[in-house]
Amino acid sequence: TLPPPQPPKNPILYILHVCSVISRFTPEILRKGIHGDTMTENGCEYRERVLTMDTMNPNVKRVEYAVRGPIVQRAVQIERELKMGIKKPFTEVIRANIGDCHAMGQKPITFFRQVLALCSYPDLLEDGKFPEDAKSRARRILQACGGGSLGAYSTSQGIEMIRQDIARYIERRDGGITCDPDNIYLSTGASDAIVTMLKLLVSGEGMSRTGVMISIPQYPLYSATLAELGAVQISYYLDEDNCWSLDISELRRALQEAKKHCSPRALCIINPGNPTGQVQSRQCIEGVIRFAAAEKLFLMADEVYQDNVYADGCKFHSFKKVLFEMGLEYSEKVELASFHSTSKCYMGECGFRGGYMEVVNLDPEVKVQLTKLVSVRLCPPVPGQALLDVVVNPPQPDEPSYDTFIKERTDTLATLAEKANMTQEILNQVPGIKCNPVQGAMYTFPRIHLPPKAILEAKEKEQTPDMFYCMKLLEETGICLVPGSGFGQRDGTYHFRMTILPPKEKLKIVLAKIKEFHQHFMAQYS
Amino acid sequence: TLPPPQPPKNPILYILHVCSVISRFTPEILRKGIHGDTMTENGCEYRERVLTMDTMNPNVKRVEYAVRGPIVQRAVQIERELKMGIKKPFTEVIRANIGDCHAMGQKPITFFRQVLALCSYPDLLEDGKFPEDAKSRARRILQACGGGSLGAYSTSQGIEMIRQDIARYIERRDGGITCDPDNIYLSTGASDAIVTMLKLLVSGEGMSRTGVMISIPQYPLYSATLAELGAVQISYYLDEDNCWSLDISELRRALQEAKKHCSPRALCIINPGNPTGQVQSRQCIEGVIRFAAAEKLFLMADEVYQDNVYADGCKFHSFKKVLFEMGLEYSEKVELASFHSTSKCYMGECGFRGGYMEVVNLDPEVKVQLTKLVSVRLCPPVPGQALLDVVVNPPQPDEPSYDTFIKERTDTLATLAEKANMTQEILNQVPGIKCNPVQGAMYTFPRIHLPPKAILEAKEKEQTPDMFYCMKLLEETGICLVPGSGFGQRDGTYHFRMTILPPKEKLKIVLAKIKEFHQHFMAQYS
Repeated sequence: TLPPPQPPKNPILYILHVCSVISRFTPEILRKGIHGDTMTENGCEYRERVLTMDTMNPNVKRVEYAVRGPIVQRAVQIERELKMGIKKPFTEVIRANIGDCHAMGQKPITFFRQVLALCSYPDLLEDGKFPEDAKSRARRILQACGGGSLGAYSTSQGIEMIRQDIARYIERRDGGITCDPDNIYLSTGASDAIVTMLKLLVSGEGMSRTGVMISIPQYPLYSATLAELGAVQISYYLDEDNCWSLDISELRRALQEAKKHCSPRALCIINPGNPTGQVQSRQCIEGVIRFAAAEKLFLMADEVYQDNVYADGCKFHSFKKVLFEMGLEYSEKVELASFHSTSKCYMGECGFRGGYMEVVNLDPEVKVQLTKLVSVRLCPPVPGQALLDVVVNPPQPDEPSYDTFIKERTDTLATLAEKANMTQEILNQVPGIKCNPVQGAMYTFPRIHLPPKAILEAKEKEQTPDMFYCMKLLEETGICLVPGSGFGQRDGTYHFRMTILPPKEKLKIVLAKIKEFHQHFMAQYS
Repeated sequence: TLPPPQPPKNPILYILHVCSVISRFTPEILRKGIHGDTMTENGCEYRERVLTMDTMNPNVKRVEYAVRGPIVQRAVQIERELKMGIKKPFTEVIRANIGDCHAMGQKPITFFRQVLALCSYPDLLEDGKFPEDAKSRARRILQACGGGSLGAYSTSQGIEMIRQDIARYIERRDGGITCDPDNIYLSTGASDAIVTMLKLLVSGEGMSRTGVMISIPQYPLYSATLAELGAVQISYYLDEDNCWSLDISELRRALQEAKKHCSPRALCIINPGNPTGQVQSRQCIEGVIRFAAAEKLFLMADEVYQDNVYADGCKFHSFKKVLFEMGLEYSEKVELASFHSTSKCYMGECGFRGGYMEVVNLDPEVKVQLTKLVSVRLCPPVPGQALLDVVVNPPQPDEPSYDTFIKERTDTLATLAEKANMTQEILNQVPGIKCNPVQGAMYTFPRIHLPPKAILEAKEKEQTPDMFYCMKLLEETGICLVPGSGFGQRDGTYHFRMTILPPKEKLKIVLAKIKEFHQHFMAQYS
């Protein structure tokens, strides 16, 4: 009982029509063919490609990265529209979607940049304008570079002298617990090292496929990398009602559940938390380490916000330090990789892509494999390595740049603390927005209560409700946030992530605009 | 009929012994256990790890990267031994294993470094010592950076203004053929972009697993990445007797062979060649493009040595230009990604990890996926992007830095050409070494004829014969080369790769030492 064909006049369309009726495939599917060919109506012309959505790596298709997702692409469009003179209810887009400190007006540390300029153009070493401590740092770095140039490759693990400096820095941070420079691997930002460790960990098929535990909400680098590697994501939920703290019984629940379909092998922690802004207590960290030891999980501690702690009573405890203070039973057993970066803290030097990881208790044979793996990419960017060296080896009290350095660092961190506080205070004044204290890092992840009518309209538009909310906020105010769905959240709850980075006066305006938007939104949809 | 147990006294060893007898597994296997635990004889102490050689990603295990392999590790050891005062028949290690220009004494281009210093420390923009053209470049770059800082993230594809500059540079290079800045992706060195493209291309299982054609000899980034991604390497041999040129019939042979066990989808070309030093003729490139079109292969053109062409009658032809000059039949159909870098040519700025790729005819939907994939790593290092901008936008005839720039560039390339010539001349004087002309790039890949006795001794040591040769050369002369087996070669032939980068006087000594070593080696083993 096929409908009688009413063939279009164009011969290609005619053939498609007939084939479609016979095969019951839509003409669109037939057009694509098996190799992703796409026929056009233009008689004989058609186009075929090797690499199409049908033939490409299916794991890549599954990758999602909300921090630079559709909302940011729309923000870029809006900026272009503003430039073209298209009228909007605002004059600029404010990007509170990404922890991009300098883009938001945070100033680089003078000393760091002086050293980088000296390393880039060593003729400046003869220039009387540069302080002696900057010059001596630059000379020391250049001596450790091949041919005395930032332009030479370094060893793949990173310049040895810089790894030694990092090791001493970690020892100072951790109250003298030994750090072996051979356990340090420099990287292209912390992301690079995190991906490398995950890559090593992933193996097996089916039931024995590697599962990796990540928090919900999480920083989407983790979910994206697990998707790309085809590993199993094991989600454990942070406790929003307890300031986004980590609950060991929830770890246990998630692990038991996961054991039914994969082989859990690693546990990732972000402390201070992204996007939660939570700072873990020492007690919590001890619990996590005991859990990892008992359940034989490789620990990955993302500690890139280690200097970003603002709340009274909160303190950063490194996993390495806690691990070693728990005694030999743990310190000789638990495998740990911890990550740090030049992109956050008071430096905020995201563009230099400097970073490192420290590995603890890594199997010596696996370490050889790790070194081999990183050697394929030759080396991390050497300017980023140089920057890392001054971060871990800053001006000392007897050096000329000390006072300026301390003042700049203190001011930057104090301003961030002030903004963290202001953000939570103002957002909590808005009915329908509930915000945990921003104890650390650079973000708030408030919960937004959306009325059923708004949720319905979002569904009609095939958007998640928080994407619908954030998109509307962007269109009406120019403020760019990331919907909570990009980080993960409990079903039926909605959030957004916002950075605390805009300059104080601008942040005030942003918060006031969000407040106004939210009230208007609630009125409109209730 | 089990042998009567004669239990060892140590309780662990006793249990192992008994279990071994019962299970017929060796004690070593039992020690390892299923999770890679390793028990020691020490009564109760034992150590278990999550991540071991048995549990790690098996693809990573298969990765090999000879350019930084065992021979380089031994070179590092020898350097340490020299420092410790251990006597050797030489006083320094000479690394001719890797194309690390600055490490070998090549000087950076002054203008580039001035711009980088200005961008790193913008206070210098007020400094009268810097030429105006360097300042204007730096100002323009900083204006394109978030917050006017190299420390801000860029868009993941790379700074838009820099992509525009690159597009104009490519248009000039290719005689006006259009280049869309939207088809340019900046990367962390060319390696990063090559890995990204391969990642997109790999899919399928078994017979339909993606196969990628690479030359033999090749640059081992390709084989390493294919191993890591679990793709099938399809080897086509370059013709050593014809100056390492590419022969289309050999491509055809390799492809037909491969179709029996995988799904060939991409063809990688390195031109000028690494490690061969060969420069492809226009005719050859046309043949490759016709082959790729007919066989539906995605083309990847590694063109990082595009300015390194020395031999008379040789000229660099970009795949993009040839493709577009072959008419619509090809220019609208063949998918191409071509790669370039700041690490080679006259710049040699390996440490900055600057690079880009241009994609042509990429499926628009796949392009969205590519952009998403690169966004997970946030952005390529911004100092490397800035460097790339000045490389594609160098001083112009009416600008103050022009003369110095031209002089430095010309001198560097002329010196390289001289060294290319000297290398092939001297090596060809040695009986048993046969060297093709170094037409371009930075390497020679001479064939060495090894006597059967040497091959036998190598086998006894479980080394490839050319590794045995290179290791001996390193121990006796301090010269570090890479054995041909790291790049691939026809069975029964042996080679090494050597860079032409050491300073002229040192290169002369290196070549003389190799000559002497080879003669001595031949005498010893014949």
